[in-house]
Amino acid sequence: MNENILWLEVPAAAPDEDARQAAEARQAQLTKPHGSLGRLEETAIHLAALQGTARPGVERVQITVFAGDHGVVAEGVSAFPQAVTAEMVKNFARGGAAINAAARQIDAQLEVINLGTAHDTGPLKGVKHYDLGPGSANFLQQAAMSEHQLGRALAAGRHAAERARLDHAQLFIGGEMGIGNTTAATALACALLDCEPKQLAGPGTGLDERGIAHKVRVIQAALERHGDHLDSAHEALRRLGGFEIAALAGAYIACAQMGQPVLVDGFISSVAALVAVRLRPGMEAWLLFSHSSAEPGHARVLDALGARPLLALQMRLGEASGAAVAVPLLRMACALHNDMATFAQARVSEQL
Amino acid sequence: MNENILWLEVPAAAPDEDARQAAEARQAQLTKPHGSLGRLEETAIHLAALQGTARPGVERVQITVFAGDHGVVAEGVSAFPQAVTAEMVKNFARGGAAINAAARQIDAQLEVINLGTAHDTGPLKGVKHYDLGPGSANFLQQAAMSEHQLGRALAAGRHAAERARLDHAQLFIGGEMGIGNTTAATALACALLDCEPKQLAGPGTGLDERGIAHKVRVIQAALERHGDHLDSAHEALRRLGGFEIAALAGAYIACAQMGQPVLVDGFISSVAALVAVRLRPGMEAWLLFSHSSAEPGHARVLDALGARPLLALQMRLGEASGAAVAVPLLRMACALHNDMATFAQARVSEQL
Repeated sequence: MNENILWLEVPAAAPDEDARQAAEARQAQLTKPHGSLGRLEETAIHLAALQGTARPGVERVQITVFAGDHGVVAEGVSAFPQAVTAEMVKNFARGGAAINAAARQIDAQLEVINLGTAHDTGPLKGVKHYDLGPGSANFLQQAAMSEHQLGRALAAGRHAAERARLDHAQLFIGGEMGIGNTTAATALACALLDCEPKQLAGPGTGLDERGIAHKVRVIQAALERHGDHLDSAHEALRRLGGFEIAALAGAYIACAQMGQPVLVDGFISSVAALVAVRLRPGMEAWLLFSHSSAEPGHARVLDALGARPLLALQMRLGEASGAAVAVPLLRMACALHNDMATFAQARVSEQL
Repeated sequence: MNENILWLEVPAAAPDEDARQAAEARQAQLTKPHGSLGRLEETAIHLAALQGTARPGVERVQITVFAGDHGVVAEGVSAFPQAVTAEMVKNFARGGAAINAAARQIDAQLEVINLGTAHDTGPLKGVKHYDLGPGSANFLQQAAMSEHQLGRALAAGRHAAERARLDHAQLFIGGEMGIGNTTAATALACALLDCEPKQLAGPGTGLDERGIAHKVRVIQAALERHGDHLDSAHEALRRLGGFEIAALAGAYIACAQMGQPVLVDGFISSVAALVAVRLRPGMEAWLLFSHSSAEPGHARVLDALGARPLLALQMRLGEASGAAVAVPLLRMACALHNDMATFAQARVSEQL
């Protein structure tokens, strides 16, 4: 990895409009009333355009979870201690976390990348360790990341996307783990969407009302401290983001450049997607959205992205768990699209 | 089968409250913030109580699709010709329908029961044929079913539920196919919920606004014709329902009596569930709800049942397709519940 970020300028690939039309034509011939499979029809057609084939599939799924700590946790913005980030990285390595169980259930490849935690995990089987520092800096006092750290985090995401592509993944899912990262993501979303913190801030892993009010004040102070610098998406990400958020944004951009469909997870991942589309406009088509989370700011971020997630299960865990839960819906959309008979094949009468 | 319906009086089984508590205690110990898996946590705990084990599972799924024709189609209430019911039964037998593709995708057992179609299908491999008549009668002129037909349809559902239980199914799903059955289901829901037809009637398989207005008038006339007889759920079902709606209600009741969890499909199935809980109060706990459909009356029926479906994908196909799409969510809920590490196992710090 190096910190060169010129690659961000490469345009996104174009979806295949012929494949989209072929998939639409096929849907109209399947033995069901037109439109009766609802969002599953749209999803199959969208995947067809992204994969450049009238018969899409998402059997091969890559999940990459990026972990990093956040200096702003020093301000008391999280319900869990910072040690939990490293503990959860170890839990990922041992296979005990939600995303491990979910990845096994859907038979997805799971990769974990520790970008930098405050507590040392030591070497862990199956965990790549990119030591960008002991977490980001406290953005109430300084920029969360240096240019060098930001460039490396973005590149870590790009590399993950490229590995997925080389491994013939049909779908890329990014996840995150980082105590304090709803604070960073909320601050970043406020900067990018020009919102007040109180409009977007929520409980994260489990703050009470007093905790949320404190989080709002911390974010407000950070927005004031960084001021006009936040008009640039790049600077907003560097100053308010975090290693894992930057890596997710880098991964999404690289996927769009390579023509690799992405399934976005929850609040943090959606903020990373928002950063990505600000850094690399024109990549929106490559992002599918899995779920609307319980974190209150998520709906606003999804709106800004024009996103309509498939699920709303009041999940708020991160780790890519919500995206993993939605994978079977994508597979079902493809199975119905690919495997149903047409009216002609089945000799079923069409609409009156 | 016989038409004796005394079996409807058998009370529903009681969920296992010890298993529920054990599952709740387990959820609180898993390495995630409490509640962060949202509806998936509730679903796992609910299934634990129904299956009487702290570690629920839904690998073995039985889907039974009941088909039947509707005399009221003579009034011009459907966008598809009545021949389609028999044609779709043949399509099920050949494996080309949506529910065939969906059942293969989730590795579920699929059974098709033709209760009586207007057009003869002839013998079909894998289709049970219970000849209750060439569809129900036109309920604008007379009761849709005789007592004898109703009793046999309910028993057909009970037998399907019993076969599923003998086959060690962990989840029962009923589906339906019957041109005209949104008209029957809407009339029945109006009778049971004391609603106006225009509040509940929708496009079904694809009526336009004029078609819906006509459907509303037909239902209104039927409600007036049958009048006070509709105060009894039994009579409402017999006069306005249909073979497949009665069979679904019978299957749901038998499942609740045996302690077999049920996943309910869309609008027609939910109306059958409403009939079932009116015929056999106290069985509600055994019904899980898969999706909220695009048919406008569904939300009102779900409300009356206190149901909160997992999905809202604008599906409106029937055949059990929406329930099949939700099965992977139930499996994911169980996988997360059963396979995640506890805080103690993973040595992860709990909340501050």
